[in-house]
This record gives sequence, C-alpha cells and structure tokens, in this order.
Amino acid sequence: MRAPLNETGATPIVPNTMKAYHFEAFNDALASLRLREDPMPSPGMGQVVVRMRATSLNYRDLLAASGQLPGIKPGLIPLSDGAGEVVAVGEAVYRVRPGDRVVAAFNPTWISGRPEVEFMRAMLGGTVDGVLAEYVMLDQQGLERLPDGLSFQEGATLPCAAVTAWSALHCGLPLLAGQTVLVQGTGGVSIFALQLAKSFGCRVIATTSSAEKAGRLRQLGADEVVNYAQVPEWGAAVRELTGGRGVDRVVEVGGPGTLEQSIGCTAFNAQIALVGFVGGLGAQINPRLLMRGGLSTHSIAVGSRTDLAKLLAAAEATQLRPVIDRVFAFSQAPDAYRHLQSRRHFGKVVINVD
Amino acid sequence: MRAPLNETGATPIVPNTMKAYHFEAFNDALASLRLREDPMPSPGMGQVVVRMRATSLNYRDLLAASGQLPGIKPGLIPLSDGAGEVVAVGEAVYRVRPGDRVVAAFNPTWISGRPEVEFMRAMLGGTVDGVLAEYVMLDQQGLERLPDGLSFQEGATLPCAAVTAWSALHCGLPLLAGQTVLVQGTGGVSIFALQLAKSFGCRVIATTSSAEKAGRLRQLGADEVVNYAQVPEWGAAVRELTGGRGVDRVVEVGGPGTLEQSIGCTAFNAQIALVGFVGGLGAQINPRLLMRGGLSTHSIAVGSRTDLAKLLAAAEATQLRPVIDRVFAFSQAPDAYRHLQSRRHFGKVVINVD
Amino acid sequence: MRAPLNETGATPIVPNTMKAYHFEAFNDALASLRLREDPMPSPGMGQVVVRMRATSLNYRDLLAASGQLPGIKPGLIPLSDGAGEVVAVGEAVYRVRPGDRVVAAFNPTWISGRPEVEFMRAMLGGTVDGVLAEYVMLDQQGLERLPDGLSFQEGATLPCAAVTAWSALHCGLPLLAGQTVLVQGTGGVSIFALQLAKSFGCRVIATTSSAEKAGRLRQLGADEVVNYAQVPEWGAAVRELTGGRGVDRVVEVGGPGTLEQSIGCTAFNAQIALVGFVGGLGAQINPRLLMRGGLSTHSIAVGSRTDLAKLLAAAEATQLRPVIDRVFAFSQAPDAYRHLQSRRHFGKVVINVD
Amino acid sequence: MRAPLNETGATPIVPNTMKAYHFEAFNDALASLRLREDPMPSPGMGQVVVRMRATSLNYRDLLAASGQLPGIKPGLIPLSDGAGEVVAVGEAVYRVRPGDRVVAAFNPTWISGRPEVEFMRAMLGGTVDGVLAEYVMLDQQGLERLPDGLSFQEGATLPCAAVTAWSALHCGLPLLAGQTVLVQGTGGVSIFALQLAKSFGCRVIATTSSAEKAGRLRQLGADEVVNYAQVPEWGAAVRELTGGRGVDRVVEVGGPGTLEQSIGCTAFNAQIALVGFVGGLGAQINPRLLMRGGLSTHSIAVGSRTDLAKLLAAAEATQLRPVIDRVFAFSQAPDAYRHLQSRRHFGKVVINVD
Repeated sequence: MRAPLNETGATPIVPNTMKAYHFEAFNDALASLRLREDPMPSPGMGQVVVRMRATSLNYRDLLAASGQLPGIKPGLIPLSDGAGEVVAVGEAVYRVRPGDRVVAAFNPTWISGRPEVEFMRAMLGGTVDGVLAEYVMLDQQGLERLPDGLSFQEGATLPCAAVTAWSALHCGLPLLAGQTVLVQGTGGVSIFALQLAKSFGCRVIATTSSAEKAGRLRQLGADEVVNYAQVPEWGAAVRELTGGRGVDRVVEVGGPGTLEQSIGCTAFNAQIALVGFVGGLGAQINPRLLMRGGLSTHSIAVGSRTDLAKLLAAAEATQLRPVIDRVFAFSQAPDAYRHLQSRRHFGKVVINVD
Repeated sequence: MRAPLNETGATPIVPNTMKAYHFEAFNDALASLRLREDPMPSPGMGQVVVRMRATSLNYRDLLAASGQLPGIKPGLIPLSDGAGEVVAVGEAVYRVRPGDRVVAAFNPTWISGRPEVEFMRAMLGGTVDGVLAEYVMLDQQGLERLPDGLSFQEGATLPCAAVTAWSALHCGLPLLAGQTVLVQGTGGVSIFALQLAKSFGCRVIATTSSAEKAGRLRQLGADEVVNYAQVPEWGAAVRELTGGRGVDRVVEVGGPGTLEQSIGCTAFNAQIALVGFVGGLGAQINPRLLMRGGLSTHSIAVGSRTDLAKLLAAAEATQLRPVIDRVFAFSQAPDAYRHLQSRRHFGKVVINVD
Repeated sequence: MRAPLNETGATPIVPNTMKAYHFEAFNDALASLRLREDPMPSPGMGQVVVRMRATSLNYRDLLAASGQLPGIKPGLIPLSDGAGEVVAVGEAVYRVRPGDRVVAAFNPTWISGRPEVEFMRAMLGGTVDGVLAEYVMLDQQGLERLPDGLSFQEGATLPCAAVTAWSALHCGLPLLAGQTVLVQGTGGVSIFALQLAKSFGCRVIATTSSAEKAGRLRQLGADEVVNYAQVPEWGAAVRELTGGRGVDRVVEVGGPGTLEQSIGCTAFNAQIALVGFVGGLGAQINPRLLMRGGLSTHSIAVGSRTDLAKLLAAAEATQLRPVIDRVFAFSQAPDAYRHLQSRRHFGKVVINVD
Repeated sequence: MRAPLNETGATPIVPNTMKAYHFEAFNDALASLRLREDPMPSPGMGQVVVRMRATSLNYRDLLAASGQLPGIKPGLIPLSDGAGEVVAVGEAVYRVRPGDRVVAAFNPTWISGRPEVEFMRAMLGGTVDGVLAEYVMLDQQGLERLPDGLSFQEGATLPCAAVTAWSALHCGLPLLAGQTVLVQGTGGVSIFALQLAKSFGCRVIATTSSAEKAGRLRQLGADEVVNYAQVPEWGAAVRELTGGRGVDRVVEVGGPGTLEQSIGCTAFNAQIALVGFVGGLGAQINPRLLMRGGLSTHSIAVGSRTDLAKLLAAAEATQLRPVIDRVFAFSQAPDAYRHLQSRRHFGKVVINVD
C-alpha cells in the first residue's frame, strides 16, 4: 500500500526558497496575482511540507480572485486543489512520510462526519493559503495518500469538484445501482458526478446546451442527453426519458429556473443535492414544490478528509479518469484563470508546478 | 398484551343495518353531509368489521368537504381518523380478533418503509371510504391495536396528525435528545410535535399569535414561545433563544413567509420537515436559502402502518395525552366540522360514535 | 416502460387444467415429488394468474424436500423463484395487466421496509405454494415487472439468491464504490454478490476450494481469489491482499470456522452480512471477536418486494447476466433437484416450464 | 451560552508548579501510583491548560493500573474523565477561553463521524496522559463546554461511561421512544444507559443480582428489574415482560453466558450494542444465534468529541443527574481505586481535585 517515491524516482532536493503565487489585491484583475520568492516552509509539530506537482482550478477560484469569497486571507496563495509529494515532515507526523504522493483536503480541519460550522473555518485558497506554490506546508491531518493509479495532474483535479460530486451523490438515502441520476451541464462537479454515477451502476441523464458537448457527455457514459437550448422544457423531456417515473437524484448546480424543472422531473423519494448558486441570485421558487412525494433537498459542502479518502478509493477501484481540458505551465497560471473565465473548457483546467 | 374486550365489558351485538355519514356532493355546504342507514358490512377474506367508538377531524377533512382533495370517492364516508373495536373478522384474518381495540391507519396499503406512489392510492376519507360511521370495514392490514392506556377518543386523534408529527420529527438524520425543535402554531400536528419532542428529551420552541395560546403551549411543555403577532421577525427571536446557534429541526406547517424565517433560524445540519401548504399558495423563496450549511428539507406524507405502530408504542411508553378541544356527539357531526372551520379550537376536535 | 407482451409474441390461451408438481411427503425421497393435473386457478380480487416460463432452485428447496423447513404446507407446490407472464387478472388489479412479464417475490406480503415477524408468514415454496407449476396464482402485491433485458430464465434466478445478495451488500452503513467485499465459495448468493459488488465499483475478494472455480470467479470479475483448500489460514491471506487494512464487507455464508476467519480479516467499521447457516450447526465463536473496531453483524432475510424491484432496476442498468449452470425441462424437475444435491453446479439450476 | 467563569466566581491564579499522579509501574500495586510535583504546562499553538476540578474512575482505569491496556504510556498520568476550567490558552485557540468550564473528550483526536483506526491512537489515561492532576494541558479540539446545569463532579463522570452509553443506545437503526431497552447490572455504562433511555421515552428492563440494587434501579426509572441471581433463565423472564415480543435494544456488558440469553430475548430488528468483554474471556456462542430475524450487533468504542457534545446537550435538556457513589479527596486517589476494585459501588466513583 506504500506509494512509490515519486514519478521520476528521484528524491527531491529541498531548496531554501521557493516560488508561490499571491494575490496582492482581490479586484478581478489577474495582474494582482504575483509570483513571489518565499522562504521554504519548515514543518512544525504535526506538519508536512509537500512539493506540489499539479494544481487545478475551480469556479470558486474566480470568486476568490475578485474578492467574492467571505473571510479571504490577505495576500492569499490561491487554489484549493493540488497534489504532490511529501518532502519533509515535522515532529509526531505519523500519517505520511517523505516520498509519499499526496493530495490536499479542501477543508483541512473537517476530518470526518457531518459538516460542523467550525470545520468551515479553514478552506485552502480562501481563509487560509492554498496550493499554487512550489512547496506548501500542510497539517498532516489535511491530506490523503494519492493512489498509484492516479497521476499528480489527475489527483489535483479531485479535492473540490470530485469530492463535491461524491457528497452530492451520497446525500440522504443511500445511492443504489439502478437509480437514475440527473446531472446538469459540463462543469467540473457535473462531469465527475456523471462518471462516478456510471461507475456505481446508475443510469445518468445529462443536460447541456450544445450538440458537441452532448457528444462528449455520451462518450463519458451518459445514457441520455437533453439539449436545453433546443428543449426549454427540458425537465419534462427528462421525465419522459424515465418512462414518466422520474429521476432518483439530481446534482443541482443551478442557473435561472433550474431547480423548478429539476423538482418537476423527480420520482418519489428523490434526493436533490444543492451544489451551486441554485437558480441564480434572483430566482424564486414556490416552496410547495418541495413537498413532492418523499422528496428531500440537501445542501452540499464539498466533504471531509474521510470523504476524500473514500473518493480516492472509489477512483482507484473504478479506474476513474478525470477529464482534463488543458494543462498550463506554472508560469502561465494567469492564463489558466483566463481560460476558465472564458467558459470554453470541458473538464478541469490544470496548472503544473514544474 | 391482549387488549381488554372493550370499555364497557360487553360483547357488542351486531345489527343488520348501521348509520354512516356520506357526502352527497362536495360543495363546501355541510348540508350535503347526510346520515344514511346502510347495510351492515360483511367481512370478506382478510377483512375486519370495526364498531367505531370515536373519530377526529383534520384540516384535510375540510378540504375533502369542499372537493379540494384529488381523486375523492363519490358518496364518500368521510374522516380518516377513528378508533373502535373489532366485531367481526373474515377468513384468514390473523392480525386481530373480535374484541380487540383498534385504530385505523391513514394509508391502509402503506404497510412499512418509505412512501411509494402506489401506497398513496388508498387514503381513508378521501379516495376510499373513511370512518364516520357506526361500523367500518377495513382490511386487516390497515389497522393497529390501541394500547390499553389510550381511550377510544384519544386513539381517534392519532392516525393523521400524530403520525405526521412523528414522521416530521424523524425525517433525515436521527432525532436526538438535547436537540432543539421549532413548532409553529397550535394545529394538531404542531401540538403533537411539541408533546412528542418533549417526551424524547428535546428542547422545544413554539410560535403562536396570542398570549393565551402561548400559555397553553407552555403548559404542554414548550420551553420557549415566540408571539409572531408581536414579533414579526420571529425567526431572529427564535435564533436568539438558542444563543445564536439555531434550531435542529423545524416542523414547518406554513403560512406566508414562514419557510424563509424558519430556514433563517436553523443550526448547521438542521432538518426542515415540510408538512403543510408551505408558505401559502403564492409564496416564493430564493432557493439559495436552501443551501445553508448541512440543511435538508423533507416532504412529509403522514406515515406507514408501521409508523403508526411505533407512534402508539411511544404514546404508551411516554403516557402521551392527546389534547382534545371538544367532543361532539355522532348526531352533531356537521357542528364538529363548523367548529374546526371557525379555527377557535386548541387541540383535536372529536366526534363520538355513540 | 411497458414490457413486450411475451417472448413469442403470441397471447397465451389459458386451458382448463394445468400441471403442477406437489410434494406428497417430505422425506428426502424425490419420489414424493409428483406431477399432478390441477384445475386452472381463477383470480379473485387483487389476484393474478401467471403462466410460468422458468423457475430456479435454491439450497432451501432441498431443505423443503426433506421436511427441514418450519411450517411447510402439506402437499406443497415447491420452489420460490419463478418468472412468467400474466394471463389473467382479478378485480381491482392495477399493478400488472395480461401480457406483462413478471417475477414473483419471495415473501409476497413483505412489501417494503425492514423485515417484521408477520411478513415472514408467507414464503413461496414453504408455508405457501410455490411456482413449480404451469400456472400460478399470486396476489398482485407479490410480484414485480421483469425488465426487457432479462430473459425468463434469468429472471427466475433472482427472487431468493440475488435479492439476498442485494440485502447482504446493503446492510448497515451504505455500500460505497471503492470498498472491498469478501464473498465465499460459489453458491448462488455468493456469485450474485460478486457480480453486484463489481458493478457497484467495489473490489471483490472471493474464496473457493478449486483452481477451476477460482478461474471462473476471476472471469466474473473477482479481483482476487484465495483457495482455502490450499491456504487454511485464508483469512490472513485475504487481509494481506488488502495491504493489511482488511475488507469492508463480508457476505458470510458459513461453514465450520468461517466466521472467525471472516471477522479476522475485516477493516474498521466493517459489516458482516450473515446469510447462511453460519459456521455449521456445531460451531462456536468467542463473542469478544465481535467487538472489533466499528464492526457490525447483520442477519439477512432475503428482502422485500421493493428490494426485488431495486435489484431488478440494478440488474437492468448494469446488464447483470445471472450465471446459469444448467437448464432442465419441466418433466425433468427431479433431476434438477438431484443435480443441485450433487453440488457439482457453478451458478443457478433452472427448470423451464415449457 | 457562555458558561459562568467558575463556580467560586474568582479567576484562578496559575502557580509555577502543580501536582499530578503518575504510575511509576503498572503492576496492580497502587503503591506505584505516586503524587509528584510537575512544572506547570505552558500552552502551545492550539493548546489549552485546564485547572481540573473533578475526575472519575472507570473499570478501564483498573486495567491501566495493572498494565492490561495496550500501548500504555510509561509514567502515565491516569484517568480519562475530568472536568475543570480553562486557565490559559495558546495561540490560535478559538474554541474556548479562560474561565470556560470544560470537560475532556476520551479520544481527543476523534472529532466526529465513525471511529477510524487512527482516531484510537490517543486515549486519555492510556496512550497519552490523563486528567488526575491539578492542571492538564489539552488540545483545544479535545474538549467541550460543560453546560451550566452540570457540576464539575457530574461533568467528570461523563466522557467515558455516559458517552459509551449514548453510543450504545444510538448504534444501528435510530433509537425511538416506545422501544424497550435491556440494560445489565449496575456498572457506570448500564446506569447511564438506563437514565438516558428513560429520558428518551423508552421502556427499560434492567437485570441485577440483589434486591437492594433492584430497588435503586427502579428508583432511577427502570420499568422492570429481573434478579438474575434468583432467575438464572433471566432472558426468558425478560422476554415474558415484553409480552413475548422481545426487547429492541440490548446494552451488552458481558459476563459468562450473557450474550446468549440477551440474543434470546430480542425482538425482530433488534440492535445489540457490545460494550464490555462480552461473555467473559472464555465464553463461546453458536454464531447461528446471530441470524435471528433482523438482528444486528454493533461494537461500541466510547464516542467522538461530537458525540460528547450531543450527550452534554441531552444531559442539559433532560436534566440528567449522574449517580455518584462516593467522592474522594485528591490526596485519597488510591483509596478511590480500591473502592472501585471492591465492586461495592453503585454509580460513579469521583476524585475531587481540590
């Protein structure tokens, strides 16, 4: 179960300084994202220094850049999602050792169990420094071993989007093979939800707005795809595709009017996982809709380190291949942000830390 | 565990005919509720004839009277809630025997487990005949034994309102002693939810609109009562009563704007049980509110016969005393309806079947 | 979602009499299994007549033959597992219609939810007549639609063994992709558990006693196979195959000393599903073993009709192909019993009803 | 929700040294338990110094004294259970502040969720120093606020025994009011289980070996008490007291032959919580017994800090009054151990830290 030392086989030499990106301001201008030379972190009791190898971007990172995340740390090193290898450990570290390939947990103090308000204090790339740096110091409790079958780039796509998809699929009643899952669009959470649901033996119906994306969703395993640009009453179309019975789960990522149609195409005892800014900022729904037979809605909050561990085990067992849209070099980090902003991606945007 | 034969001790003599109320029309005029002489039912395979002793009214019965329930049976014998004693059993009946004190289940074909769409086909006093009759024929699967500690009148208050309160308290994550439960107003479900939650070791905060009702809620065990007529921002007041932490459960029965304030006073990982016509017919909420940390909402649908059995066991163990507002004679059934319509009651309105 | 009328496309003509096997005695001599000409059943209220097309045998049917099942019906028509098509329906039947392809539920009165003692009263081919007949009368509540993707023979293998495997995999904490499941031997439940666990994204370790069977288990997807004839300490070997962590679930079907080794190779928070005559009749274990970290054991009792429905949905979505060892003609039913008795089979033994 | 500063109202003055008991050897001779003058601990990042006010003993502490706990720390400060007030906090402490009344969690690194093997590394008074000292340094994550309604002595009885009882009552299916719970004997876990179950609206049957203890159990709310010294077949007697139906939960603390009788008196779908050295060291049971209808067994491991928080909330809401047998002065700690060894206690043995 020991991970191989690293992908090149050589033990890294730890320098005295390292490069890290910092936001000097949060004003939506990526010019304020600066690469700086920082001192090499030295691990204290229970701490671990990780040589980052790859990171990935989430929509949330655009919000951070423009100062829309609450409680953001001044001078933040951005990004929550990264994978690398342990190069140094402090006193009393027992969870990993130098050479281990690891991935960082989104909420490093949410170890297990339900979300509690105090577990939300520390979020990488938000209230605490993130991973867009050559070396990152983490508490040993805030990381998990990366399975051999996943590359650093693949591992770096998982902590936020894939764990959120995992949590969304597992909210409420147990997920069962044979259930029908509705996923919306081609964002990171939606694509992971599609892939995970298929590998659990579910039937997946996806929505999208273009024929090209529909084709890619089908390639990834979607049993049915509804083009909501062509079919404004896509909820009714989804219901029809279930023979009128409805879907068992919705991974709801929002957009104006989405939730109303989502509710309308659910079966008895369905779970709706609320992931995104549901319905947009100004949307309204009639709450009577929520009283549909056996329906429950669930607010999703990424997941615990234990959820990350379970996802990694599932990714290994099902040979999950995260969809990577494009890989940027470390020096091109601002371009990676712009690419995400352009919304032309299909899959995760990765920044190598080379 | 055998129930005593009946409260008078005498074995009833079963006549050839019996009296039953029927709705000749559903037009909101109680004049169409007529007492008729019907032939005595004769139990077929698996069927049971029950001599009704007491029934109770729910708000739903007013909807039935005015034709607002879907799928209502023409010529309906109304009311879902009744208790009595078994006087005759058909072939292959093994669940009860003559003399047993019993209470009817709201959905006679929903035996156990989650609600399924097909279990909703038969609802007493709606899609099938109810209990406002001297003798009622029921499938043996559609009833439970009434514990010795509960009178017929008390038993008759339970199948709809108390089972709904039970289901509302048990939706989602397990109910725990020490949790804080918010109940709204003084309807049947709310009062049962208050009493049950207190007997489970919970703290209960209730809302109401009058000082007199507030006093009665406190007598029933409410730890705190907020008068929403005096405190329009009652949600904030409820939150303050929890030291800012919020409530763990809401038994939401609705009214304009209720849900929004209810959500606002929940703690992390709260469950909101949606029981009534939430928020009134025209209300709207921003679905982003539903994304509060760990929150889930649950649509409540009365409960199964097994839920009724569990409630009865809890009622016996905790010596639940249902709050009965007023008892009407069988001949005064229309007056009982009018009393419920007047909304002057506090507790259940009972009609004896004498 | 309507099933095609039947596999030949022709509406069956219902004769006046039909053939059915009956046990004239329960003495282990298959000579007492007689084919008789019975009157054609006529469906009463809520009843359905099914033209059986295929049935399958379980180990339990050998116990029935030798009188080792409690409460067995004199003159029993044996076998619980069968699939066919509806040819006639009684009054008030709404769940199926003539021409529907259906499969019978093992416990026809256990509709949904947890097992309750009273749901155990009726078990096909035990306390009530089973399916080894040309035509069988069933309550409409005791059957489910057979998905198009499953043949009658395949459908006939599912009600007992596959539903038991489903229940065994879903006991206790939710089943998760990425978990490791231990299955034992090559009985019907074990093979279904292997196939289902693989289609849910689990890792499966199987035990068996021959190299040939090991090969077949690997073909069916087993990630690892331990030959317990060669490795008496197979529990330690299983643990080693998990890197020392242990398995998350055991589908325990018993045999001398099995449970002790099974417990020994579990991870923290494992579930052991107890399916068979665990440990043989005389085995003993030290109950301290059950106190392993987070361990739970669960007694498994086939499953409800709703469980059957969920299994059928999963079978369709994951394209489950039940392993059929051999198919016997209706006239050869005693030979099918003998084949099962010989324990030379790998997979289900089917009897066609031709 | 702020706790009062302390029970005397004065802010404590922190000295430079403090007294603590240490085991110089683990040889069952309490002579090796020595009171020493230690330097006052100084809180580092995230750490808290607590002025202990009261501690309590568990059976486990006798095992520690005689070296029977695995992984015991040399020179151990013993005892897991203590309550006191915060006198100093290190950097980045946000969960408590000086003056807060607190109680220590048994496993300081098991914050929430299921037990995981790595959460078991740190157990107060076992693998890490415990609380039998004037001042104790704890990680801020390893304690909870003591509700105002509980004294230090009462709070000190809860972390091990009461949390174990809480976990035992909440294993498997949700605990419901109206269920029947079997508790065994008069140990700390059993008495807490009795009190908690009663405050949740359950019916409780207790077993004991003396008429005097039976009387005290009845005073604490036991609905029925069976004297197993007089009724060797106490399991059958318990079953009879449930009208033949059986109990829904057993908090199994062991002793020769206990588990076998416990299983025998369970109802369908019962949960057996395995708490103690079940059945003694040499006992054996036939594992077929575990296949009783719907039965599950659950290994119990005290509980997480979140469980402690939930128990404290329940204790406050239900006005739990822990049963304290006798309170010893700090200087009499060895006498407290001897009193526990004598098994003459009924309720918790407390050592004040005065």
